[in-house]
Amino acid sequence: MQALIERVRTEAVYLGKGIVKVDGFLNHQVDPVLLTAIGAEFMRRFAESGCDGLTKVVTAEASGIAPAFATAQVLGVPLLYARKQRPVTMPEDAYTAETLSRTRGEPARLFVSSRYLTARDRVVLIDDFLGTGTTLQAMLSLVAQSGAALLGLGCVVEKVYEGGRDRLGTIGVPMVSLARIDLVDDTLVVY
Amino acid sequence: MQALIERVRTEAVYLGKGIVKVDGFLNHQVDPVLLTAIGAEFMRRFAESGCDGLTKVVTAEASGIAPAFATAQVLGVPLLYARKQRPVTMPEDAYTAETLSRTRGEPARLFVSSRYLTARDRVVLIDDFLGTGTTLQAMLSLVAQSGAALLGLGCVVEKVYEGGRDRLGTIGVPMVSLARIDLVDDTLVVY
Repeated sequence: MQALIERVRTEAVYLGKGIVKVDGFLNHQVDPVLLTAIGAEFMRRFAESGCDGLTKVVTAEASGIAPAFATAQVLGVPLLYARKQRPVTMPEDAYTAETLSRTRGEPARLFVSSRYLTARDRVVLIDDFLGTGTTLQAMLSLVAQSGAALLGLGCVVEKVYEGGRDRLGTIGVPMVSLARIDLVDDTLVVY
Repeated sequence: MQALIERVRTEAVYLGKGIVKVDGFLNHQVDPVLLTAIGAEFMRRFAESGCDGLTKVVTAEASGIAPAFATAQVLGVPLLYARKQRPVTMPEDAYTAETLSRTRGEPARLFVSSRYLTARDRVVLIDDFLGTGTTLQAMLSLVAQSGAALLGLGCVVEKVYEGGRDRLGTIGVPMVSLARIDLVDDTLVVY
């Protein structure tokens, strides 16, 4: 997606240790014009891949919410975001899966109410980044626990050098990334 | 906002101790059609109140992101969401303010990069709930630290019985709520 690739080329900053900062338009400050186009592009790609009958877009709080919301808007289907704490309003029979906190590097858990994800759902998973794939693996586990059908995965930016695609590679559904970042001699290559 | 008021009347569940569950359309599962209308309604109300020259919509992760994104979409201005942990990508000179974790009831902090909120900004604050006003007070502190001009506050649902409006009442800008919930003999009254 050319507009996104250009934006990543212009604004992404490499901080070392594999960490890329894109907080000017994606995961702290958010550009709604770009994100709206990103949602439309995800849905175009999923439709091309034959995904149909989608009932829900699933993501994890917090940085997945904006791109997932923009994607859900295209078809008007609900967005469901996994919580990182079980709120007092969530029943105790919630689905849960272990992941890693991206901000703290510690083990963390995702929670989804079993009321909102069921075997009747047909879902795509959306996230801002595909890095090592840990968060998406946890989301895949939540979907599997619910019995919902998985139709596709989408990430806004794929950090190719972290190998998440290979780790998730055998799931048998389209895995869409709209911009890719690789590292060559500690320099970002965006494509 | 009648469509929202009807939705709250139909779906909100009172769990006792002042806690209202609206996670079927607002803060776990999200209805993008309703939220898009909510964003438009916030902007219509702010415009009526004479807010102009808005440069940014500010909220706090995670449940503020969807309504704030829908609001920012209307004018195409950036959305900025305060983080609850300082990410490794955020400079150490970030603005920070103390609040309470809504899920855990413990003290928590909000962080905003000083790069994205400055004295040149003219902002509105958006959140999903106005309860005791603690989160909005922390956001007001972040805006004050930045020197940005505050043009208005908006919350999707105001829990009248928690008194947040009175606590925030002297800030001198429009404070918009699109649905209000009060408690009479442990029964929700929505208007």
